[in-house]
Amino acid sequence: MQIYNAPLRDMRFVMHELHGSAAHLDRIGKSGVTSELIDSILEEAGKFASEVLLPINASGDEEGCHYENGVVRTPRGFKQAYDQFRESGWSALAAPAEFGGQDLPDIVGKMVEEMQCSANLSFSLYPGLTQGATLALLGHGSDELKARFLPKMIEGVWSGTMNLTEAHCGTDLGLLRTKAVPQEDGSYRITGAKIFISSGEHDLTENIIHLVLARLPDAPKGVKGISMFLVPKFLPTGDNKPGPRNGVTCAGIEHKMGLKASATCQLVFEDAVGWLVGEPNRGLAAMFTMMNAERLSVGIQGLGVAETAYQSAVHYARERLQGRALSGPRRPDLAADPIIVHPDVRRTLMTIRAYVEGCRALSGWVAQALDLEKLGPDPETRRAAEDFVALMTPVVKALFTDLAFETSSMALQVYGGHGYIRDHGMEQLVRDARICMIYEGANGIQALDLVGRKLPAHMGRMLRGFFHPVQAFIEANAADPRIMPLARAFGALQQATAHIAQAGLKDPEEAGAAATDYLRLLGLVALGYMWARTTQVAEAKLPTANGDASFYQSKLTTAQFFNERLLPQAGALWTAIKAGKESMMALDSAAF
Amino acid sequence: MQIYNAPLRDMRFVMHELHGSAAHLDRIGKSGVTSELIDSILEEAGKFASEVLLPINASGDEEGCHYENGVVRTPRGFKQAYDQFRESGWSALAAPAEFGGQDLPDIVGKMVEEMQCSANLSFSLYPGLTQGATLALLGHGSDELKARFLPKMIEGVWSGTMNLTEAHCGTDLGLLRTKAVPQEDGSYRITGAKIFISSGEHDLTENIIHLVLARLPDAPKGVKGISMFLVPKFLPTGDNKPGPRNGVTCAGIEHKMGLKASATCQLVFEDAVGWLVGEPNRGLAAMFTMMNAERLSVGIQGLGVAETAYQSAVHYARERLQGRALSGPRRPDLAADPIIVHPDVRRTLMTIRAYVEGCRALSGWVAQALDLEKLGPDPETRRAAEDFVALMTPVVKALFTDLAFETSSMALQVYGGHGYIRDHGMEQLVRDARICMIYEGANGIQALDLVGRKLPAHMGRMLRGFFHPVQAFIEANAADPRIMPLARAFGALQQATAHIAQAGLKDPEEAGAAATDYLRLLGLVALGYMWARTTQVAEAKLPTANGDASFYQSKLTTAQFFNERLLPQAGALWTAIKAGKESMMALDSAAF
Repeated sequence: MQIYNAPLRDMRFVMHELHGSAAHLDRIGKSGVTSELIDSILEEAGKFASEVLLPINASGDEEGCHYENGVVRTPRGFKQAYDQFRESGWSALAAPAEFGGQDLPDIVGKMVEEMQCSANLSFSLYPGLTQGATLALLGHGSDELKARFLPKMIEGVWSGTMNLTEAHCGTDLGLLRTKAVPQEDGSYRITGAKIFISSGEHDLTENIIHLVLARLPDAPKGVKGISMFLVPKFLPTGDNKPGPRNGVTCAGIEHKMGLKASATCQLVFEDAVGWLVGEPNRGLAAMFTMMNAERLSVGIQGLGVAETAYQSAVHYARERLQGRALSGPRRPDLAADPIIVHPDVRRTLMTIRAYVEGCRALSGWVAQALDLEKLGPDPETRRAAEDFVALMTPVVKALFTDLAFETSSMALQVYGGHGYIRDHGMEQLVRDARICMIYEGANGIQALDLVGRKLPAHMGRMLRGFFHPVQAFIEANAADPRIMPLARAFGALQQATAHIAQAGLKDPEEAGAAATDYLRLLGLVALGYMWARTTQVAEAKLPTANGDASFYQSKLTTAQFFNERLLPQAGALWTAIKAGKESMMALDSAAF
Repeated sequence: MQIYNAPLRDMRFVMHELHGSAAHLDRIGKSGVTSELIDSILEEAGKFASEVLLPINASGDEEGCHYENGVVRTPRGFKQAYDQFRESGWSALAAPAEFGGQDLPDIVGKMVEEMQCSANLSFSLYPGLTQGATLALLGHGSDELKARFLPKMIEGVWSGTMNLTEAHCGTDLGLLRTKAVPQEDGSYRITGAKIFISSGEHDLTENIIHLVLARLPDAPKGVKGISMFLVPKFLPTGDNKPGPRNGVTCAGIEHKMGLKASATCQLVFEDAVGWLVGEPNRGLAAMFTMMNAERLSVGIQGLGVAETAYQSAVHYARERLQGRALSGPRRPDLAADPIIVHPDVRRTLMTIRAYVEGCRALSGWVAQALDLEKLGPDPETRRAAEDFVALMTPVVKALFTDLAFETSSMALQVYGGHGYIRDHGMEQLVRDARICMIYEGANGIQALDLVGRKLPAHMGRMLRGFFHPVQAFIEANAADPRIMPLARAFGALQQATAHIAQAGLKDPEEAGAAATDYLRLLGLVALGYMWARTTQVAEAKLPTANGDASFYQSKLTTAQFFNERLLPQAGALWTAIKAGKESMMALDSAAF
């Protein structure tokens, strides 16, 4: 059985203690959002996740979505859970008040999102995509479109999707063929076939608002000829009820490795009515507002799944009796010791824990930047925050999701054969986690985005926004021997950065050859920095912690584990990077 | 679609060129087995795998096994394929002629095994377990049991199983409860419940021969009170036909993450008639004859799946058009370049390739030792071979299967979203591969076996059998700069070995804390040694290779890739190991 209780204590630590929520909220003009309010929201969100979403996670996987004649039915319990989700106001949490949202900061919204992903990844996609579509509309839609669609979407009565992929193009959107023909009334008629559309058709909301990439008749070739359109499933009536059915139908759903309760749809648009969102031929930029938000969300999905995998593995490791501790029996009263006494089980649990808590800390930092990007007190702060979000988006997306797959598989391993059978739900977590490495830009694409776009942007300005605080921290703590692993890893990262800047300038394939290892290296340093700062905070709190002493002590121990056992991978990554492209690119395609 | 063509060229390279099959066959007194004979067997086996087993791999996964009222039906096509398998003599390939086998050496048998695992892992388990049961009977059965059961099993008319696990005990067999009561006629009555029994019930053979661990009434507690019994599904008649049904029934099959066409059974023994195999209370040792053989086989399963994942990914990477090469369009005649031009796709394919070919080379070395263990010309040779097999068994099992999961997941990634849906069969490979890390002793147990049993055995004698040739090779090639990565990794391995010997002696938990990283480190060095030797052979052959030049050149390039990009992980592993157990073991169980 999957175990999940929202890690409230750690979330409070990350938000309030590590990242100083009080000062942050002041800074973004939201001092009315007290830490008491935040904590009670987190507590309620945790209850909702554990009590409503978790119980339909395994059953949703077992049953899957049903497709018949263009209609998609979600698994048993999903509609009720969604209604409850909407009625409790979770869909409006971080949305702007102007359109009916609750205007809570992202530092809260992202934690709540994590909980929903932990409890039921498939479920989380339905509101998750609505949220992304909301952002795209907010950023690029006309006032009329915003007024007409946003309130219903933020209320959760209507949901959203993003329609990019076609059978012959996923990564390479320049190849897309869907067409949009302008009409006299200012609308467009959209025709084409899209695949892999999450939540493209379902029974949770009364209408579905598709954001669709298509080409205008006179559009230039490639990615510079793509426009974005809003295409609702039902055309809204004057009083904004779902009216006549639009020309978009679901031709089928995919049978997938996991994420089975999320409907992955083939959508066919035939003369469907749509409206342009943003400028003609600038659709990719508009879609990237949504895409970038989704990339961060997918990273958080990975974190969420890994947390459930961790908790489930801990539960089993405490319950399962097998063998005796190498240092002698710990529970002579029982037939065997619980397997949590065994070093290799410890190694597994500590590894998952060190990654999960490190990722949560980093996620909290990025969420703060999301707030500052919008609400920072001055342009310089907002610009710096925007840079940081842009730099960290591919890192969060790829690092968190690679780790989610690795760690959920480790958690399965704790269960032995019992993890491989369906009964405990561990294998579902592994299957579900696997998609996160792929969608919203496969992780290799994230790495290319990092080295090809983010590193060189503005002469390295984005990177400096991350390097400077890390370097300053290392220098300020140079006397502490525990800083050495981070200092060493950061040194490797600096060398790798210089290598890519030089070699990549001459030959872009050199940057490509380094990309994936570089992203992991930067990610490890980011986690290492989070653990170093966590160490400092925990150490300061420990003397007066009383009942919380074990919490802070565990932070110190986990930081030590991360430093000793995981962060040293940085060296091997730098060695691999400096080898360059030669052996990677030498084989002729026919020789493989 | 899964792609598999037996890698015959690489198999011939490993067997004949790298490991010198001609001298080896002379040495074991089988010079009659010519390389022409071997090559034609491999070719036939490859055809059988691709033409008979592969076509029912995805359909077998989709359909799964059927259970009704104690009867298990394998998926469509499995019975026909098995009949063809048996009739073609594949079940008898490496079995002793005395009981109807073909007496071919293991260097051939293991390659054929790999092909079957590549084409259809689920299928391979049915004959695979029969082979293991055959070995256990050969090693420990009475002449009467051998004469009665072995010919039918080797012919493939009857199949075999191993019954160890019970619901409350997998790793910790000391807890097992199944009972055996002696009867006046010298037989026993077995009663108990077993779970996770692969091929425990199915429709492929006319009888199933279970090897069952159980306790005699007066047996001491723990693992020293376990005996092994042969319990057939049908009691053989005087003329060795299946007679009356025995008291063993299948109570259900497991629903698993993968391996769905292999029946994983719950078996209930109720006063089932059985015969003792080997000495009373020495059942675990007898079962370990089978278990050790199976562990090697599971490693080869991993290698097999990884090969298919590799070939499938290469196929897709050559066909899928997406994006342009970073160095400029390669196929301007097409809408986009095939994705094999992208460095990150190359990195993925080269990584899989370097691991798969390295593992095959190592597997060939171990298979040679299997032959020498039985047929070596003198006791010293046989003893050294036995040592080597014992040392490498946990390494092959855990390293190959960890890598199989990692690399099949990498291969899935090459397909992007198309890898996550069922259509291409990539996600099946990942799901199938995952079990190999668990069964026949979870990989953490393999690591403990390596550091806790194999390292200290005979004052390190087993390890020296591996260290000496590696060290000698490094010394002999000290002038070649390409030996440096191996020399460095071997240095790390030597230090890690010394650390474990010292720290582990004082505190066994220190050895436990190092185990998994140590196994990977030793595995990397073993692969690195294989690649270094491969380099030498390929370089010697290249000048006169003519049509084969590309093959040898690819070996050199892949070796370089392994040295530069993968072997350097050794350093990080040693750093992790030397951290010791402190941070791993410090947390209180309640603090997780």
